[in-house]
Amino acid sequence: MKHNLIFIFTGAAIFLISCNSSIKQEPAGVKDNVPFPKGEKITNANFTGTAYLHMMIAADSLNATAIGNVSFEPGARTKWHLHPGGQILLVTDGVGYYQEKGQAKKVLRKGDVIKCPPHVTHWHGASADTAFVQVAVTSNQNGGAVWFDAVSEEDYLK
Amino acid sequence: MKHNLIFIFTGAAIFLISCNSSIKQEPAGVKDNVPFPKGEKITNANFTGTAYLHMMIAADSLNATAIGNVSFEPGARTKWHLHPGGQILLVTDGVGYYQEKGQAKKVLRKGDVIKCPPHVTHWHGASADTAFVQVAVTSNQNGGAVWFDAVSEEDYLK
Repeated sequence: MKHNLIFIFTGAAIFLISCNSSIKQEPAGVKDNVPFPKGEKITNANFTGTAYLHMMIAADSLNATAIGNVSFEPGARTKWHLHPGGQILLVTDGVGYYQEKGQAKKVLRKGDVIKCPPHVTHWHGASADTAFVQVAVTSNQNGGAVWFDAVSEEDYLK
Repeated sequence: MKHNLIFIFTGAAIFLISCNSSIKQEPAGVKDNVPFPKGEKITNANFTGTAYLHMMIAADSLNATAIGNVSFEPGARTKWHLHPGGQILLVTDGVGYYQEKGQAKKVLRKGDVIKCPPHVTHWHGASADTAFVQVAVTSNQNGGAVWFDAVSEEDYLK
C-alpha cells in the first residue's frame, strides 16, 4: 500500500513537472507568432505609447496602396488622423480599439476587418491591457495621412 | 531494486502518455491558426484544385481596394490572370508559388509579400505538398481580373 501511494504521488509529480513547459501564460505584449515582422519602434509624434512599424509595401506610381504591419503595446494608439484615400485595417492578433470622430469606440480582435472611408477622422490602437497587431492597407491615391491631436485619456478609456 | 525499476518505467510511461497531446504533427492541409477565416470552397473555373475564399472587404466607389483571404490545398493554384489595377499578396501561412509570365517561379512562405504590377500576367497557389494561405489585396480601380488558361502541370512543377 505504501509503495502504491509513493508510486501514485511520484507519477503525478513527474506528470506536472514534465508537462509544465506546455502550459504557457498569454503574454500581454506583442507576440512572436503573428504572420508579419514587428519591425522598428515608431519614433515620430503621431503615436502615443510604444508601437512598432514594419513597412510591407510602399505606394508607387502604378499602385497607390501602401501596406504596413503595426504592433501596439498595451495602451499605445495613433493620434486622431485621416486618410484622403481611405484605409482598411486587418487585425492579426490581440485586442484593440478603433474609433471614428463622433462615433462609439469599437473593440477589435484577431480576424476583424475595418474599412475607414476617405477623409473620416479616426484613431486606432491597443486596448489598455492587451497588445494589438494590425495590417494597415492605406490608399495614398489622394495624398498621405493628415494628423491631428492625441487621443485624450478620457476619450481612450470611454 | 525491483520496486525502483517499476517506479522508473511506470513514471516514464505516464510522462509519454500524458504529454502525447502536446506533440502534434504539422498538417499538410490548411491550418486553423491563421488570422482570417478559410471561407467557402471556390467553385468557379479560375482555379485548379481545391481552394477557399473568404472575402474580407469589397471594393466600393470610394476605395477600389478589394481584400480576400485565399487558402489553397496542396497542388491548388489560380489560372494565369492579370489585374488592371495590380495586386499585392500577403502570405500568412504555408508554402506557395508565384510566377509572372516569362519569369522564374518564386517560392513564398509565411511573412512574404509580393507586389504584382498592373497588367502583368501571373499565377499563384500552393506548393505540391504543403497548403498555402495568402491575403490578396487587389486594386479594382481599372477593372476586375482578366483570366487566361490553366497553369499546366509542366509549368507548375518546373
